[in-house]
Amino acid sequence: MTGLTPEYRIDSYFARQPFDIEGLSEMEMKKIVVALGGNALGKNLHEQFIDVQHTSRAIADLIGEGYQVVIAHGNGPQVGMIQEAMTQLHRSDPEKYDTVPLSVCTAMSQGYIGYDLQNLLREELYDRGIYKDVTSVLTQVEVDPEDPAFKNPTKPIGSFLTKEEADELVRTRNYTVIEDAGRGYRRVVASPKPKKIVEIKTIQDLVNSGHVVVAAGGGGIPVFRTEGFHLKGAAAVIDKDFTSELLAEELDADVFIILTAVEKVAVNFGKPDQKWLDELTPEEAEKYIAQDQFAKGSMLPKVQAAVKFAQSRPGRTALITLLDKAKDGINGKTGTRIHL
Amino acid sequence: MTGLTPEYRIDSYFARQPFDIEGLSEMEMKKIVVALGGNALGKNLHEQFIDVQHTSRAIADLIGEGYQVVIAHGNGPQVGMIQEAMTQLHRSDPEKYDTVPLSVCTAMSQGYIGYDLQNLLREELYDRGIYKDVTSVLTQVEVDPEDPAFKNPTKPIGSFLTKEEADELVRTRNYTVIEDAGRGYRRVVASPKPKKIVEIKTIQDLVNSGHVVVAAGGGGIPVFRTEGFHLKGAAAVIDKDFTSELLAEELDADVFIILTAVEKVAVNFGKPDQKWLDELTPEEAEKYIAQDQFAKGSMLPKVQAAVKFAQSRPGRTALITLLDKAKDGINGKTGTRIHL
Repeated sequence: MTGLTPEYRIDSYFARQPFDIEGLSEMEMKKIVVALGGNALGKNLHEQFIDVQHTSRAIADLIGEGYQVVIAHGNGPQVGMIQEAMTQLHRSDPEKYDTVPLSVCTAMSQGYIGYDLQNLLREELYDRGIYKDVTSVLTQVEVDPEDPAFKNPTKPIGSFLTKEEADELVRTRNYTVIEDAGRGYRRVVASPKPKKIVEIKTIQDLVNSGHVVVAAGGGGIPVFRTEGFHLKGAAAVIDKDFTSELLAEELDADVFIILTAVEKVAVNFGKPDQKWLDELTPEEAEKYIAQDQFAKGSMLPKVQAAVKFAQSRPGRTALITLLDKAKDGINGKTGTRIHL
Repeated sequence: MTGLTPEYRIDSYFARQPFDIEGLSEMEMKKIVVALGGNALGKNLHEQFIDVQHTSRAIADLIGEGYQVVIAHGNGPQVGMIQEAMTQLHRSDPEKYDTVPLSVCTAMSQGYIGYDLQNLLREELYDRGIYKDVTSVLTQVEVDPEDPAFKNPTKPIGSFLTKEEADELVRTRNYTVIEDAGRGYRRVVASPKPKKIVEIKTIQDLVNSGHVVVAAGGGGIPVFRTEGFHLKGAAAVIDKDFTSELLAEELDADVFIILTAVEKVAVNFGKPDQKWLDELTPEEAEKYIAQDQFAKGSMLPKVQAAVKFAQSRPGRTALITLLDKAKDGINGKTGTRIHL
């Protein structure tokens, strides 16, 4: 893409070169927000390294096609692991080690995941001669304390507990705990809707400067705004599909892509009349939602987020496809596209 | 500073206002890199909240004086805690939970500390009517695999070990372990010099856009560059004074401030002829260093980093002073200043 000498290339991450595709400036390039799910990141550190290398190739494909890309991602297994570690540490010596709120665990998970993601994606880009910086931004997302989700926590967090441990946490920490048939008890937290992305201006300025940004990891660190400008961590996790969608709206993205484990969305899934969907209007998608066509906590939030983006402004397209098919998807060859 | 209506102010973190002091543009404002030590952050999460509120007032004072500020910080107790938690988790179920390298623990500590720092500083700024975004950037710092520090690891990490645990880690993980007189054994890691800040362009672009940036937490995530553009985490911790100094040089800062627990540097410390130092040339400082005037691992790296910055270009000033005296220090009323 650029005619740098090999020597200069070696040092080029300290002097980023403009990335010029077909003469477009950064401001004129089309913008994509990509939401990465669990299959893009793996469930432990070893898997993360392998899977993120793979994921980086899919994202580099999109950047190579000439798009500005912002990456958001989930953190389910990672924040569960971190919260478990912090809980065990506290139990091992309660005098010495604080309990660590879930919001702080999410902040840590953004470091844990962002570190591999920014590294491996930058490496993949540089290997292709695309000299863009990749940066992870610690991102908070405001949620509404009146969100009905807080009255009905449903999202399991951390490991299984005995009845005694569960009772203790309900009594001493005011946790909400559910019984998981036959497997013990688990803490559940609220999954409120995202309202505003606190660091949006940072992300926007970095995109305008030509950086690839990793943001809103794990759906963002959920915070309430209390008096004045104070932000207080919320004991919640925000669905990464909804936060990614909000990020796409706030950045005025052209395309919102949810990369997942299926190539297309289907109706009558697993039945004889199963049908893969190529193009959908928001109205058609909502009709299928009303028919309970999509699995809760899995395809449903993805389709809901895609519909919200498509409805937010004419010309905006949401795409749901397989991680490996990102490039084919953006070029209209596969995936399920939702737009007005 | 700006004539915003109260209502607009409430939403203003989503639409940052230009911060215009005495008609200077962001590009014309003088730039400060501030290095925060352990006393600025506390030793646990509860202390961190209190101490970072306090620290935020000192930094807001500098911003209120019309400087662009970039903040770097240490992470000694925090990365120790995180590493301990990850080690305990792994031991509790080695099949399920990976060991977590020190570099990943540092990445997590940048989230753990940056979250409070960016929040509390932004709140302090907004309460003063200064509408600037504060952003934490996950930062890697390249170190040299040939750095002599790797042959002589000296920096203790994590909790005390029994002789059996220590022997096991030496055998299975190739750790270096030292005996700490009477208190048991501890893992030690190398403390190499920082060579390059990987995310420097990101930090620079954010500063130019008017953001306050928190970067290079814990001295940065130490990485080696191996073949091509691959960065590999190093089992090391970089001294935050040296990384902050490098950051100040690479950002072409005017002033490098080390905020610490003493108001000025002293020679003959604690002796009848103790003398507080106001102004020093790098040559004078080096003379005192040669006399072993400064404590290793404490004041010595601070003076060394200050000397390096002062020597790097005429017109650059390094300042060492008390956290609470940052404003007086920048205005020349206290602290120890080192410059050509």
